[in-house]
Amino acid sequence: MAATQPARGTRDFLPDDVRRREHVAGIVRAVYERYGFEPLETPAFENIETLLGKYGEEGNQLIFKILKRGEHEKSGEADLALRYDLTVPLARVVAEHQGKLPALFKRYQIQPVWRADRPARGRFREFYQCDIDAIGSTSPVVEAEILGAVAEILERLGFRDFVIRLNHRQVLTALLDTAGVLPAQHGDALVALDKMDKIGREGVAKEFAARGIAEAAGAKALSYFTSADPGTLLPGHQAIDNLSAIVQLAGMTPAAGRIRLDPSLARGLSYYTGAIMEVAVEGIGSLGGGGRYDNLIGMFLGRDIPACGFSLGLERIIVVMTEREMFPAAVTHGAVDVVVTFLDEGSRGDALKLATELRGAALRADVFPEVARKFEKPLKYASARGARLMAILGENERAKGEVSVRDLTTREQTAVRRAGAAPAIAALARRRTEN
Amino acid sequence: MAATQPARGTRDFLPDDVRRREHVAGIVRAVYERYGFEPLETPAFENIETLLGKYGEEGNQLIFKILKRGEHEKSGEADLALRYDLTVPLARVVAEHQGKLPALFKRYQIQPVWRADRPARGRFREFYQCDIDAIGSTSPVVEAEILGAVAEILERLGFRDFVIRLNHRQVLTALLDTAGVLPAQHGDALVALDKMDKIGREGVAKEFAARGIAEAAGAKALSYFTSADPGTLLPGHQAIDNLSAIVQLAGMTPAAGRIRLDPSLARGLSYYTGAIMEVAVEGIGSLGGGGRYDNLIGMFLGRDIPACGFSLGLERIIVVMTEREMFPAAVTHGAVDVVVTFLDEGSRGDALKLATELRGAALRADVFPEVARKFEKPLKYASARGARLMAILGENERAKGEVSVRDLTTREQTAVRRAGAAPAIAALARRRTEN
Repeated sequence: MAATQPARGTRDFLPDDVRRREHVAGIVRAVYERYGFEPLETPAFENIETLLGKYGEEGNQLIFKILKRGEHEKSGEADLALRYDLTVPLARVVAEHQGKLPALFKRYQIQPVWRADRPARGRFREFYQCDIDAIGSTSPVVEAEILGAVAEILERLGFRDFVIRLNHRQVLTALLDTAGVLPAQHGDALVALDKMDKIGREGVAKEFAARGIAEAAGAKALSYFTSADPGTLLPGHQAIDNLSAIVQLAGMTPAAGRIRLDPSLARGLSYYTGAIMEVAVEGIGSLGGGGRYDNLIGMFLGRDIPACGFSLGLERIIVVMTEREMFPAAVTHGAVDVVVTFLDEGSRGDALKLATELRGAALRADVFPEVARKFEKPLKYASARGARLMAILGENERAKGEVSVRDLTTREQTAVRRAGAAPAIAALARRRTEN
Repeated sequence: MAATQPARGTRDFLPDDVRRREHVAGIVRAVYERYGFEPLETPAFENIETLLGKYGEEGNQLIFKILKRGEHEKSGEADLALRYDLTVPLARVVAEHQGKLPALFKRYQIQPVWRADRPARGRFREFYQCDIDAIGSTSPVVEAEILGAVAEILERLGFRDFVIRLNHRQVLTALLDTAGVLPAQHGDALVALDKMDKIGREGVAKEFAARGIAEAAGAKALSYFTSADPGTLLPGHQAIDNLSAIVQLAGMTPAAGRIRLDPSLARGLSYYTGAIMEVAVEGIGSLGGGGRYDNLIGMFLGRDIPACGFSLGLERIIVVMTEREMFPAAVTHGAVDVVVTFLDEGSRGDALKLATELRGAALRADVFPEVARKFEKPLKYASARGARLMAILGENERAKGEVSVRDLTTREQTAVRRAGAAPAIAALARRRTEN
């Protein structure tokens, strides 16, 4: 007998899991569509050269590689690799299909990615990413629209207590320069700064020292990063003007009042060139982040195209919403409205007929497929399906021209005329929903 | 500069492609939900032992295998493999989660699978499958419900000219026995019979001969298979009773009048044990098929559980619907309702504000992010997005307290008051949609 576990670090998504994800993804899609973003999907695997070298040395190690087929299988050579994120495939698509895409290409993409990370609590080898990107404009309108859409999504999902942290890659560079941190140490400094949430100010100071940053420069940089207003530190700097424009424009969208300029926000990815942003919820941390990256697409296209994107942490959002019980009950309860049960062979055909009528009345109807000689089995089944009502057809009902209807919560049983049973049962189901 | 093609045999799904697929999948999901089926999703890869040996020798060759990670990578050993169909993962899930699933588990699953087939026109290495299966009952109600759901889906998609071919594995066996085909030759005979559509009656007769089936037996079998009514050939056979029950019960569902008993229907897969079925459209051929397989789940569970399933040919349906222009225009046209354009920097903030108001009025609104010094660029963009209207804000409009609205089809330009602009523009957009 074969083993039955899913592969290490992956999950089976049972019906309630799929429904929770679809609830969130449905809101995400609806909002992004309303902001003019269009859906894109790319293949699960890419030619291996498309991915190798795009995610740094560590990333290369974590890419799942696919064996060449046929006679090459024995060679152990890999020619394909599983999608590692949604950004590199997007860059490839923009280069490949540029003639078919609008000058400003706004796309959203919700698909799984695969990383050979060591599995841990909340860290999987297969997980969904949920990205939007706008390709083709340097205007701060792009950042403002992205922040507006993200804020609207979180509000519609039921989050009330989120803020958007905003910073700029050039602000970080300018502050490090002003503090006297050597240019060659900027990368190290940002990696350390990115951990501020986790290790605190003292922890960052220690990391600065460990990475050979002079104590005075490090201390100065830290005081800059934790100051409230980067504008007074860098008067007239174009990055500050850019941030001001973004804040002003985002004020016209659902992101209004949510944005906090935060000079300590670093974001790990090295490809950002402009504004960087992160959505955080009190007591939970980041639910997503993004920024402007004007040079990445050039890797495939041969010339740079401005771009700005945001990735919502779909998996994290689902975990938090589950913990906080933010899903509407209808998402995970009551997959079926009515289970139709027949008590004798002679009622079997009419049971299917009734189910067809109930479906025509927009109910989700299920037929218990066996003759219910003992009543327990269909009752247990109906309860496992979360059904509200059971419609019962047997010899008695046939003789009287009726259908018995049992409310599975109150256990009350009533009868409705067989002719016109579907609308009558639909009315009962709706009454149950409203209570 | 990196290559930009997707991997061989795979496709990028641009926005219109995703929308077409989502239109079909949305109807499929809605109907299956109404029939009491629940969504399931399984990981893209499985432990390699889960898949190897389940699809025959040819299948083993076509499975994409994933290299072990880390130090093992050099060994060329594979420990994971990409999903090859949705049935084996379902059998694994039923065994793994049996305690959590209802006694009758009805699931649908729409996910991609991967096969290292030689790519050809209409044959891809990554393609979507769309399966329903009901696990846990031998009742013909199950077959009838599945056929009812499939018929309703095809009708809702706009197919009028489809029939459901129905046969039974045991009918095939009994007819071959009666004709005098040796039991050891049954497998070969069914493989040949399965090609009837492609190679015709004479072609099948030739294949019979080539596979060593005695001429008289082969001719007799062929005359049975092409006879109209298997019931007169096998009076009182339990498979005939089963088919009669399915036809009678399916007559109570949207499959009514669609079913043709067809003793020549063989279906390739060897794991079927009972009824087998196929949906065919005149001039196009099969759009999907399925049947009862009561022994497959035992591979993972250690004891048999009755099961019946149907797989809709999602990719084929999309191709046919595209060729026949069966998609509603709204699916692929007009991804955006309004593009908001600003003519000077001073109108930029108000452009975002107007877009926010338009989205609040349920319109899909986009902001052209640059100052439109030349009008051509935003016009070209709006047309590439399929927008119906353009809302224009500039110095003139600001002075008058107005928004200019341009109908991009008629090129008429009107003005609406800035206060209350959103509902006025929404009304114009709706008028455009109705025309």
